[in-house]
Amino acid sequence: MNYIPPTGDRMLRKGIIIFACMMMVFVASLPAEGTIGDLRTDPRTPFPGENVTVKYIIVNHGDTDITVNVTIRFDNNEIGRKNGLIVKAGSSYTGEMEFTSPSSPGKHTLVLYGNNILLKSLDIQIVEDKPASFLVYFIVIAAIIGVIAALVLARDVMSRDPGTQKMQDISAAIAEGARAFLNRQDRTITIISVPLGILLGIVYLITYDWRMAIMIASAFLFGAFCSVLSGFIGMYISVRANTRVAAASQKSFKEALTLALRGGAVSGLIIVTMSMIGVSVLYYLFGFVFNTDPRETPYLIVGYGFGASFVALFAQLGGGIYTKAADVGADLVGKVEEDFPEDDPRNPAVIADNVGDNVGDCAGRGADLFESTAAENIGAMILGVALYPYFGINGVIFPLVARAFGIIACVIGVFSVRAREDEKNPMRPLNMGFYVTVILLICFLTIINYELLNFNLYFLCANIVGIITALIIIWITQYYTEAGYRPVDSIAEASKTGAGTTIITGFGVALETTGLTVITLAISLLISFYLGVLAVVNGALTTITPWEGGLYGTAMTTIGMIAPAAYILAMDTYGPITDNAGGINEMSGAPEEIRARTDMLDATGNTTKALTKGYAVGSAALAAFLLFSAFIDSVEFHRPWTLIIPGSEIPGVNLSVMEVFVGAFVGAMLIFLFTSFALRAVGKAAFAIIEEVRRQLREIPGLREGKAKPEYGRCVDIVTRAALKEMVFPSLLVVIVPAVVGIFLGPAAVAALLMVGTIVGILMATTLNTGGASWDNAKKSIEKKKLKGTPQHAAAVVGDTVGDPFKDTAGPSLHVVIKLLSTVNLVLAPLFFLLR
Amino acid sequence: MNYIPPTGDRMLRKGIIIFACMMMVFVASLPAEGTIGDLRTDPRTPFPGENVTVKYIIVNHGDTDITVNVTIRFDNNEIGRKNGLIVKAGSSYTGEMEFTSPSSPGKHTLVLYGNNILLKSLDIQIVEDKPASFLVYFIVIAAIIGVIAALVLARDVMSRDPGTQKMQDISAAIAEGARAFLNRQDRTITIISVPLGILLGIVYLITYDWRMAIMIASAFLFGAFCSVLSGFIGMYISVRANTRVAAASQKSFKEALTLALRGGAVSGLIIVTMSMIGVSVLYYLFGFVFNTDPRETPYLIVGYGFGASFVALFAQLGGGIYTKAADVGADLVGKVEEDFPEDDPRNPAVIADNVGDNVGDCAGRGADLFESTAAENIGAMILGVALYPYFGINGVIFPLVARAFGIIACVIGVFSVRAREDEKNPMRPLNMGFYVTVILLICFLTIINYELLNFNLYFLCANIVGIITALIIIWITQYYTEAGYRPVDSIAEASKTGAGTTIITGFGVALETTGLTVITLAISLLISFYLGVLAVVNGALTTITPWEGGLYGTAMTTIGMIAPAAYILAMDTYGPITDNAGGINEMSGAPEEIRARTDMLDATGNTTKALTKGYAVGSAALAAFLLFSAFIDSVEFHRPWTLIIPGSEIPGVNLSVMEVFVGAFVGAMLIFLFTSFALRAVGKAAFAIIEEVRRQLREIPGLREGKAKPEYGRCVDIVTRAALKEMVFPSLLVVIVPAVVGIFLGPAAVAALLMVGTIVGILMATTLNTGGASWDNAKKSIEKKKLKGTPQHAAAVVGDTVGDPFKDTAGPSLHVVIKLLSTVNLVLAPLFFLLR
Repeated sequence: MNYIPPTGDRMLRKGIIIFACMMMVFVASLPAEGTIGDLRTDPRTPFPGENVTVKYIIVNHGDTDITVNVTIRFDNNEIGRKNGLIVKAGSSYTGEMEFTSPSSPGKHTLVLYGNNILLKSLDIQIVEDKPASFLVYFIVIAAIIGVIAALVLARDVMSRDPGTQKMQDISAAIAEGARAFLNRQDRTITIISVPLGILLGIVYLITYDWRMAIMIASAFLFGAFCSVLSGFIGMYISVRANTRVAAASQKSFKEALTLALRGGAVSGLIIVTMSMIGVSVLYYLFGFVFNTDPRETPYLIVGYGFGASFVALFAQLGGGIYTKAADVGADLVGKVEEDFPEDDPRNPAVIADNVGDNVGDCAGRGADLFESTAAENIGAMILGVALYPYFGINGVIFPLVARAFGIIACVIGVFSVRAREDEKNPMRPLNMGFYVTVILLICFLTIINYELLNFNLYFLCANIVGIITALIIIWITQYYTEAGYRPVDSIAEASKTGAGTTIITGFGVALETTGLTVITLAISLLISFYLGVLAVVNGALTTITPWEGGLYGTAMTTIGMIAPAAYILAMDTYGPITDNAGGINEMSGAPEEIRARTDMLDATGNTTKALTKGYAVGSAALAAFLLFSAFIDSVEFHRPWTLIIPGSEIPGVNLSVMEVFVGAFVGAMLIFLFTSFALRAVGKAAFAIIEEVRRQLREIPGLREGKAKPEYGRCVDIVTRAALKEMVFPSLLVVIVPAVVGIFLGPAAVAALLMVGTIVGILMATTLNTGGASWDNAKKSIEKKKLKGTPQHAAAVVGDTVGDPFKDTAGPSLHVVIKLLSTVNLVLAPLFFLLR
Repeated sequence: MNYIPPTGDRMLRKGIIIFACMMMVFVASLPAEGTIGDLRTDPRTPFPGENVTVKYIIVNHGDTDITVNVTIRFDNNEIGRKNGLIVKAGSSYTGEMEFTSPSSPGKHTLVLYGNNILLKSLDIQIVEDKPASFLVYFIVIAAIIGVIAALVLARDVMSRDPGTQKMQDISAAIAEGARAFLNRQDRTITIISVPLGILLGIVYLITYDWRMAIMIASAFLFGAFCSVLSGFIGMYISVRANTRVAAASQKSFKEALTLALRGGAVSGLIIVTMSMIGVSVLYYLFGFVFNTDPRETPYLIVGYGFGASFVALFAQLGGGIYTKAADVGADLVGKVEEDFPEDDPRNPAVIADNVGDNVGDCAGRGADLFESTAAENIGAMILGVALYPYFGINGVIFPLVARAFGIIACVIGVFSVRAREDEKNPMRPLNMGFYVTVILLICFLTIINYELLNFNLYFLCANIVGIITALIIIWITQYYTEAGYRPVDSIAEASKTGAGTTIITGFGVALETTGLTVITLAISLLISFYLGVLAVVNGALTTITPWEGGLYGTAMTTIGMIAPAAYILAMDTYGPITDNAGGINEMSGAPEEIRARTDMLDATGNTTKALTKGYAVGSAALAAFLLFSAFIDSVEFHRPWTLIIPGSEIPGVNLSVMEVFVGAFVGAMLIFLFTSFALRAVGKAAFAIIEEVRRQLREIPGLREGKAKPEYGRCVDIVTRAALKEMVFPSLLVVIVPAVVGIFLGPAAVAALLMVGTIVGILMATTLNTGGASWDNAKKSIEKKKLKGTPQHAAAVVGDTVGDPFKDTAGPSLHVVIKLLSTVNLVLAPLFFLLR
């Protein structure tokens, strides 16, 4: 894989610029559509006794002037009238008036008449601004529990025997390399994030005021900082747990498994707790210190989500490029050119290779799941605003309270894991812990629902649908990626006839996974949406539209699916810890029997890593619908009547409109292009390390014979720099393309870009993740049959090589891309009106 | 690649059935939206003096009854009034009345007043039903010219020296196998098509009447028959031209090139001419024999398009599976297990392998391009109906007339090709011919525009945009698939480090292609749409909406892009002819110098094949927007007011509606799943032929030593049966899934399925086609450097093997899928209302 001067890249970049310019030329805002009469109140959900502004529009589409007598009635009492209003042909009249909303709660109706014909009626629910439930304190309690549990677990892990000096040395070298990578990565992130934060502030300063500007910019920077921190914590604990798990495995299988899970749980708990604390603190600060209306605050916290996902993309993509470039680079020169065995200390890239596991899997996925939980919280809170009339502030804080109880359930789940010494299937205790978590969660959610949502059975069912969806998605992932089922076995069979058929069969399997995954997600979306609709149609929620109810239903499902996130994250981080422990055992020459133990742990680690990815994609899919509903809400918030189609209550992202269709087209393309860049970045970064390894072998005398020590640090440094260089362009692409489309083609086009980009992103990520995992496991199943060295194994190794950047670079980065697309648009929404 | 009992398939199929059932449970038709008042005329484009029915609806959204005085005015004259009409709260009133449209042409306005407020106004343009222009005769003239030219060319080809007896024998065996495959395939197609045609008739009998039923069913069967015939013709001539080109190459390079192109031109011309004749005959028959309103006829001809694309999918997918299964099967047993050289007569699968090129490339692509041209004609005609008030029948027949002149231009283009004996770049004469065609086309289109569309410059520009788009897409394809540019060279470089990096780099390149392709198509769509909008805003077309004008603009661009189809098809068929000619030369032991000539021809053949695929995807993209606009029109035609959003003129395919979003999600998934099935089908069919080759080698004594003749026929037979078996499920999936979604989630959801499925289909097809072609050319560029037998070459061969089913099975089949999705929905539209 050689470095070729990027003439094509330049061509492509030029293409994008030309595209942008062409769009500018063709901005032809079609004439604004209006309806015969329209009506809205500001704010949309008034408090009792609050002063409310009513706006109304009368549009005359005809070609003769008309005379209208306008009457506005509130609960059949006339509150406004204008007689003999002349509306000229083809123009419209916009009027405004104030009234005081009643102090008694209940449903009220506002009606607009023109010449005694009802032009528009609007239902308004006035409820007491009832104070937040006492459950809100559980956010603080859960935060304390989460942090204490993490500290207890961390103390427990650190107090264990770190193994022999040799083991500690290896571990220290890995930790050193990982730290070096993160330091440099964080510098790059800072250089890009701070100006972006300032830019954001400027956009809001132009469109709003300095108060908004400061809030949005500081939320962005705070989110970015927390995301960096969560990556750091994930990596910090795992590079210390690995050697201790290796040492423990020399005594007891049971202890090793428990220790690995607890090590994983430290980062899981810290990350999820931190995401909750971050959102809560901002909500409190913006609400009480900046004195923002509680109905507006969620729109300001989106900056936090954007910051988090922006950094997460760098972390996941940079880490993913690093880990695979180091892997490929070490293998190609070490194994292919020099015939060194795996993990040979003479190979200058060997430490870089081991560092990769930590920066890709731990730091990257840590940041990824941090932003997932943050983005989902915020998305659900924005939708909660729509239900403000019913549940007051309780509907808005429901996601945070649910998260709080989720943390408590996960803590109990982690501590409940009890492994047996003679465990046949190491997944059993992990699964048991998960089931404990899930059952607790259902109990907790029932309690929260009772207290916050007046025991709304529809929404409770939606929560449970989310939990079931998580289980089904995990099963599907298991079926497609584990040996013993048809898909992986067919790949192993196909490798008998060579590398070509291995790739074709594996790619076929990978694509096939999307079938059941999409069917599950589609059914889950439909059920949760209809549950929300039923809550409106059959329930007490009469003034919101069925559409808004349906959205809150999907929000509830997402909350259910994401509730056990801390436990899942613990299982995920368990993966690289056991992987590294196995490596340390191997390098320090542990006996066969002990290595069998870590191999067994490692095998479960591979499974848990694959499952987490399935879970992450699934929850991203649900969260995405949440987030782009929030985007639509946000556009309405910033510029009312932009997307709501006059005469209909549903905002329009209409694919029949050419600009919207083009937005959708570009959204799908963006995913393909991002995948291309991510895959090629691995190649380019790998080339950089190959050059360096060759140089060291050439210039350091005695290295090949094992007499001199290679410069490990330089390899780490070079692959770090290459990975960071390659991560910038694709990441910025994901921010710039939606911004360009939004500015030139408008908010509806960017909403389509978002939605179709998300759909394609989910499919592509599923394909890449499954492909990678099933090739890997097909290779492992062949190795289990002691067929190493056969042509069949060689073919399977090709599959594994192809799968590596699929599942560790491009696939996981796409999860982040999906959510970044949503958050970037949420934040940039005001910008899309500047040119209109 | 082994056959595994399809438990996973069954699981997936079950999943689909469960999905369908779940959907049924959740069909919760949300309350119908209405606006305060609405108005429409039937028919939408009345003739002068015709009796017109006006329907109006008054909707009361409020909760008090209202009393309305309704007045309808036409050109300010009251034509209807109803006083004291009481519309109850929450209900609506629908009224109907007749009036006679004026006999003088011009713009007229219909207005609905309620209590003196204008509720809705509707512009109606009355024009003389002016007779079709004299240019309509050119359809007949072009048909005659096309057929005569094809016969002249065929006669010319057949009169040439067919070479030695040995060459003729090989050619005869290939022809025999291809004939056998097509016969059996046609039987399968008949078995599935005839019941489907009857089913279609029944659907229309239930929703309409026997007249509609007969027309739609017969159009479907006629389309299917023509599609079968075009596949047969494409194959018939190419299996005869191959040996003659081989013989010609022994005398002169110039003669061989001209002959190959002329052989290709026979099928190109016949297919395009037949598509035009088919549509014209149906239009004439339905219009004059069945006496259908010329404004309705295009909606009935869609059956023809559906039949054509349904058969084309079978032909392309079946042929694609056949060709790659035979290829892989012959190679794996012959080369890998038995160490036979390529094309060794002892290999029982060798003839099957050669047959494959013809059934996949010639017959398959013949049917593919037949349905493309048919579908595009019909889609453009349906949109032409919207412009009926301006251009009368001329707007509807414009696509047919443009096609007629396209054929004439292509005939001249083909005859203008003059090769030199010492040609350095054999693409030069082919390109020259293409440029002649294009220049002629621009002249012709100007003339047609002047005569039929009153010289509308906007639409002429849109035509030219289409032609330019075709050129750019061809250049992009060339850049990404030809050696000498960065993409292919980077793959060749990557193969130095093994098969894994070859695949990753190639896949990265393949994905990258979508970037420039989508940007080009997006710009082209936007420009053509805005040209149409400008034609409305700045032109005389005042009564259609800018949206309708924009659609006709894209239709014009599509017409421009598809106009040189016959020439492109000639270049495409040139590919397999030269490929086969090279094979015949090789097998019959021609000297090195002559083989170099056919190798050179073969190399251009590969290029032209790749370019055609790029062109086919590009035109499919434009045609798709045409076709789903036609679908929306068709839904409106069958059940007015279904998709048009009240108060707005643009029909809604609104992604914010959950059902529509799920439709989009399923549409994207369908493409991934289809690709998976297509790839795996190749594996399964290859396994069948491997078994048979092994059996013959085992059971026929003396076969391995060359003393006995293998049973070629049985191999052909077995791979035929396997390919046909595997093609059925994926093909039916493409018909069934949209039908299920349409029935349970409604026409808007199916429109989203269509649109997003098309977007993803274009991206996936582009990726697969480019990937396949660039791996192939990377391998060839390595072979050119005389590196055959090196590890680098071995790695490149793996890439080529992976690319084969990408570019010859899945990719081209996706072109057809895109259009089949549109036509199946166009035809099934009435079915989607049965459950509503």
